[in-house]
Amino acid sequence: MKEKTVSESKTIMTEMIMPNDTNPLGNLMGGNLMRWMDIAAGVCAAKHAEAHVVTASVDHVSFQSAIRLGNVITITAVMTKAFSSSMEVYVEVTVAEITGANPRKSNHAYFTFVAVDQENQKPIKVPQLRAVSSEELDRQEGANRRREIRLILSGRIQPSEAKEVKDFFSKF
Amino acid sequence: MKEKTVSESKTIMTEMIMPNDTNPLGNLMGGNLMRWMDIAAGVCAAKHAEAHVVTASVDHVSFQSAIRLGNVITITAVMTKAFSSSMEVYVEVTVAEITGANPRKSNHAYFTFVAVDQENQKPIKVPQLRAVSSEELDRQEGANRRREIRLILSGRIQPSEAKEVKDFFSKF
Amino acid sequence: MKEKTVSESKTIMTEMIMPNDTNPLGNLMGGNLMRWMDIAAGVCAAKHAEAHVVTASVDHVSFQSAIRLGNVITITAVMTKAFSSSMEVYVEVTVAEITGANPRKSNHAYFTFVAVDQENQKPIKVPQLRAVSSEELDRQEGANRRREIRLILSGRIQPSEAKEVKDFFSKF
Amino acid sequence: MKEKTVSESKTIMTEMIMPNDTNPLGNLMGGNLMRWMDIAAGVCAAKHAEAHVVTASVDHVSFQSAIRLGNVITITAVMTKAFSSSMEVYVEVTVAEITGANPRKSNHAYFTFVAVDQENQKPIKVPQLRAVSSEELDRQEGANRRREIRLILSGRIQPSEAKEVKDFFSKF
Amino acid sequence: MKEKTVSESKTIMTEMIMPNDTNPLGNLMGGNLMRWMDIAAGVCAAKHAEAHVVTASVDHVSFQSAIRLGNVITITAVMTKAFSSSMEVYVEVTVAEITGANPRKSNHAYFTFVAVDQENQKPIKVPQLRAVSSEELDRQEGANRRREIRLILSGRIQPSEAKEVKDFFSKF
Amino acid sequence: MKEKTVSESKTIMTEMIMPNDTNPLGNLMGGNLMRWMDIAAGVCAAKHAEAHVVTASVDHVSFQSAIRLGNVITITAVMTKAFSSSMEVYVEVTVAEITGANPRKSNHAYFTFVAVDQENQKPIKVPQLRAVSSEELDRQEGANRRREIRLILSGRIQPSEAKEVKDFFSKF
Repeated sequence: MKEKTVSESKTIMTEMIMPNDTNPLGNLMGGNLMRWMDIAAGVCAAKHAEAHVVTASVDHVSFQSAIRLGNVITITAVMTKAFSSSMEVYVEVTVAEITGANPRKSNHAYFTFVAVDQENQKPIKVPQLRAVSSEELDRQEGANRRREIRLILSGRIQPSEAKEVKDFFSKF
Repeated sequence: MKEKTVSESKTIMTEMIMPNDTNPLGNLMGGNLMRWMDIAAGVCAAKHAEAHVVTASVDHVSFQSAIRLGNVITITAVMTKAFSSSMEVYVEVTVAEITGANPRKSNHAYFTFVAVDQENQKPIKVPQLRAVSSEELDRQEGANRRREIRLILSGRIQPSEAKEVKDFFSKF
Repeated sequence: MKEKTVSESKTIMTEMIMPNDTNPLGNLMGGNLMRWMDIAAGVCAAKHAEAHVVTASVDHVSFQSAIRLGNVITITAVMTKAFSSSMEVYVEVTVAEITGANPRKSNHAYFTFVAVDQENQKPIKVPQLRAVSSEELDRQEGANRRREIRLILSGRIQPSEAKEVKDFFSKF
Repeated sequence: MKEKTVSESKTIMTEMIMPNDTNPLGNLMGGNLMRWMDIAAGVCAAKHAEAHVVTASVDHVSFQSAIRLGNVITITAVMTKAFSSSMEVYVEVTVAEITGANPRKSNHAYFTFVAVDQENQKPIKVPQLRAVSSEELDRQEGANRRREIRLILSGRIQPSEAKEVKDFFSKF
Repeated sequence: MKEKTVSESKTIMTEMIMPNDTNPLGNLMGGNLMRWMDIAAGVCAAKHAEAHVVTASVDHVSFQSAIRLGNVITITAVMTKAFSSSMEVYVEVTVAEITGANPRKSNHAYFTFVAVDQENQKPIKVPQLRAVSSEELDRQEGANRRREIRLILSGRIQPSEAKEVKDFFSKF
Repeated sequence: MKEKTVSESKTIMTEMIMPNDTNPLGNLMGGNLMRWMDIAAGVCAAKHAEAHVVTASVDHVSFQSAIRLGNVITITAVMTKAFSSSMEVYVEVTVAEITGANPRKSNHAYFTFVAVDQENQKPIKVPQLRAVSSEELDRQEGANRRREIRLILSGRIQPSEAKEVKDFFSKF
């Protein structure tokens, strides 16, 4: 089975916030940010899978600080884990003024994608992911628990079947 | 304290899927759908709050069935619970072909918004929500648990403080 | 012959006015409003016809009050009459501030569409429309006169053939 | 009182039909065409008025032949008559394939605009229009009748007051 | 061999500068202007070639004066020379306020296009260009020198082979 | 005088080619590519200058290979030289299929920007650029010659004053 590293599919996207991306208060609308995150994450997943992909889910996203008109955002998408035909991608957004001033992390999210055959859009197998750095290993480590939560939330498994999540909460 | 019903802020949005909304496979991209859901939910929250609002978070969203170029989607956003200055909005998306054929639920999500003062964008109080129908009461009922999960996920409380979530999982 | 009610195809669209929709004075441009009205009306007609449709005409539209950046508009499109393969759709636009303040009717228009075969884009028959409420009957009632005016204006009949219009003006 | 010729404000706009301008059948949507016509007509009126303008109305528009993806349209907007602070603009659309093949008139419409003060958006006086060619004089000639029809349609005068329209129909 | 005049393919495009076309200072971004110039020039070349065309190159463009939000630009594209399957198009941009005030030339550029077969996108022969006026002849005259510069800049000929350019610089 | 490295302002932008970016042949239009290159280069220059910037010029750009709908492009912008208040930025575009297949360099261009004061948009001084790697030094080396060519092309110096360019051509 083919195996690929995280850096082979790492994707960076830079966008300048234009007027139409903002609400009447001059802040980037959350939905527009998610649209860009989805594209960056999708490009990353497709590069890993060497195939077309479709968005399967987005985990909880929170928006802590306002991003303003004219700000520049940098979106970095990296693979965290490859399952059979689905993949989890971690997306992190940093923001700064156009002059580079006031740089800070804005937010992050986990997206999942399914690789599909172009012809009939059926799921196909994807290469394994080789996590190397401790950061990459940490992200891969939590992937199974995040997956269980998704399966509960989308109603595909019962909470009672979510072994990793139960273990996690039982620690407290 | 002012109190408003769910129907006072209910918001319906219809969109036809245009070429630029789709990926190379001709499917609506997940991020574009979230962009519309965010606008519909934001209009709903602003109507309830009678104020400007900013997106605070989006809960887990999953995309089960492909939405195709030329399909028509209907997005319905309703308030589920008003907290002090934040609000939870439930958004449901249905989809059908342009001819109305093959109508089905596509997906749903919970968005939270914070009402802010237009001048300095500080949080302001919002009216209470009066849930009336059993469906409205059901949605309000789960809101506290969903809120705890968000607070854990955004790192603002420890899992040990998430009383409702612990209770929920301890049942299994 | 199949018959459908008005409510079966009623279509509601909500849009928030973004910067690019406005002119340098910060007002929604008339043409942008007509673009949305056309989409809402087209979705309505396609749903009634259960077929693809093409815009055949738009009757006189007047723009009485300015719609401002950040305002929210609600476009409601309802069938008024189904002819053989063409349909008349009534579109009404209401507007309010994002906070819901200052709600008012903005304007309205009558659009006509022709249902066409997807293959060769030739006109096809559409279901009859069953008007039930007095409002629906009123709108259906004026449809023949509006149709005569359109035929005159597009040069397809002579004013002398416009029986209903002549009768209308002879009353004064 | 200042007087200007038709050619001083004549405005030509060329657009290539892009994917997002078309419906699922690959035809330019009527509303998108009206959006461009409104911009071309507005630029023409503003140039004549030497002031900002707002769209007041659009007369009946019919769409006879399909405009296809990749076609090139040419929109020509010319002043037909200047009233006190409002202006009537005639807009004609021609279309051809990208190669210039199959050129034909697509459709036309009359738009009216009101010149406004930038500060408070109140109507202001506009220069008189000097029609010179027989074509320009013909268009100016019908402007009063078209104006009466608009006043009836927008409910500002009673049909009984529409002298020119009554005269027109009484001839048949 | 077919021969066509410059006026047969002359293309005029008018655009109003919208919010999303501008940077945070309220100036039209250079890249947006080039996007419109490319479309106008491409429509011109396609009309001359009576074929689809692809952009081959853009010569040096400089942006001397700021174009502001709400300004109106007029882009005029004319053929300067037809080579075997490529064509040089001169594009000039003038700008004025929406009221027509402060009209001035903004900038210009030379674009080259290659006519291609729609089927397999291979270059095809184009009609010869007949320059008539002294202005048209002047523009055609410099076309060979500009072409040599392009061939050097894109690395397809050595500077030593650029006879016209060497002659030009040797005069000083 | 402040000095900054090339890597401090390096900017990477990833874009997926959407339907509206392409011509009727399904190829990315050259003007759209230049629009993105301008944004990436502008973000790079602003980061170096720690100020707002305006595009001053774009050097010759050639488009050698077609970029197709659904392809993914990566735009990398790096500073090559800082003059007094202007800066030269090198932009390189690589392209691959969505699956990562067939990666190749598409094209490149040199953009120049002027740093301006936000208040009155007058030129302001920028930090010096410290080129370190041999590649950075090579790019800086050619910058003076490219600048002379720009000054000739924009008519600000006579060819006889272009010492570096004359020297260059006299070698052949």
